[in-house]
Amino acid sequence: MNTRDKVLYQGAYLTLKSRNGWEFVARQHQVAVIIAWTVEDELLLVEQYREPLGRRVIELPAGLVGDESELEDEDFLDAAARELEEETGWRAGQLTEFMTCPTSAGMSDETVMFVLAENLVQVGRGGGDDSEDIVVHRVRKSFIDQWLDERRSHGLGIDPKIYAALYWSIKS
Amino acid sequence: MNTRDKVLYQGAYLTLKSRNGWEFVARQHQVAVIIAWTVEDELLLVEQYREPLGRRVIELPAGLVGDESELEDEDFLDAAARELEEETGWRAGQLTEFMTCPTSAGMSDETVMFVLAENLVQVGRGGGDDSEDIVVHRVRKSFIDQWLDERRSHGLGIDPKIYAALYWSIKS
Repeated sequence: MNTRDKVLYQGAYLTLKSRNGWEFVARQHQVAVIIAWTVEDELLLVEQYREPLGRRVIELPAGLVGDESELEDEDFLDAAARELEEETGWRAGQLTEFMTCPTSAGMSDETVMFVLAENLVQVGRGGGDDSEDIVVHRVRKSFIDQWLDERRSHGLGIDPKIYAALYWSIKS
Repeated sequence: MNTRDKVLYQGAYLTLKSRNGWEFVARQHQVAVIIAWTVEDELLLVEQYREPLGRRVIELPAGLVGDESELEDEDFLDAAARELEEETGWRAGQLTEFMTCPTSAGMSDETVMFVLAENLVQVGRGGGDDSEDIVVHRVRKSFIDQWLDERRSHGLGIDPKIYAALYWSIKS
């Protein structure tokens, strides 16, 4: 924590701070966001009700990673692997750090690490832990723009990081 | 505001709330994010120091839009036009709503509206208002991956919404 930071409110999960007069939200954990393409060129996506938005949102599988494990890449990737399997039921034979990015630089110190998951095998049904109610989708690349447009037209939120992942899948 | 919401802390710009036990940050204004390609196939990007992250970040031009003006599309786009010109010095002959997306669905009710800016003409130097210190970049599409990689390797943050914009530029 920066010594210039003033804690305005310490919540259970989020902290509202001020630094040089600028208000922002501090995350206690980094976020792993997982880009997982099956061998059949399907992207794994998750759909869940998001309380802050009051509606269901389509996102890449993701999870918070504990502070300690951030210190070592291997533990970070282990945590990403667990989140992927828990949310989607797919296990990755290989996970690679791809890129770390800020998600809302004016509002938060949140950064997400994009992780590439490869050599995927389905080992369960996914759905998240007991507190979660996640629907898993496997969407073929050739059909994904139309699929996302349809979901959006039905009122679901679409996380724009999905489109970033699609860009990287074309460029790689 | 949802009647189930509990205000944990009311800041000057952000509000920390709880809803059904879920903590999140509420934005008082929506965000317009502007995708602006010049006729020479250059994307307009802005670089500025972001207090929450403690470093400089490369982003699409963007700005908060007042609550009242959100009620009418025309005013929203007018505000986007003003932000684009203020930050980059470029004026758009046409602005079109493209897509509204949540940026961090687990943490915030923040949504951004992506706006396509076309028929661009340079009318000033940009740089933002008196409180801002913005560097404007025009980056050619054929060179942009390398350019972003270089910036990241020098420690700058890269907003992943840039890659979403690049995806859309390829698909359209």
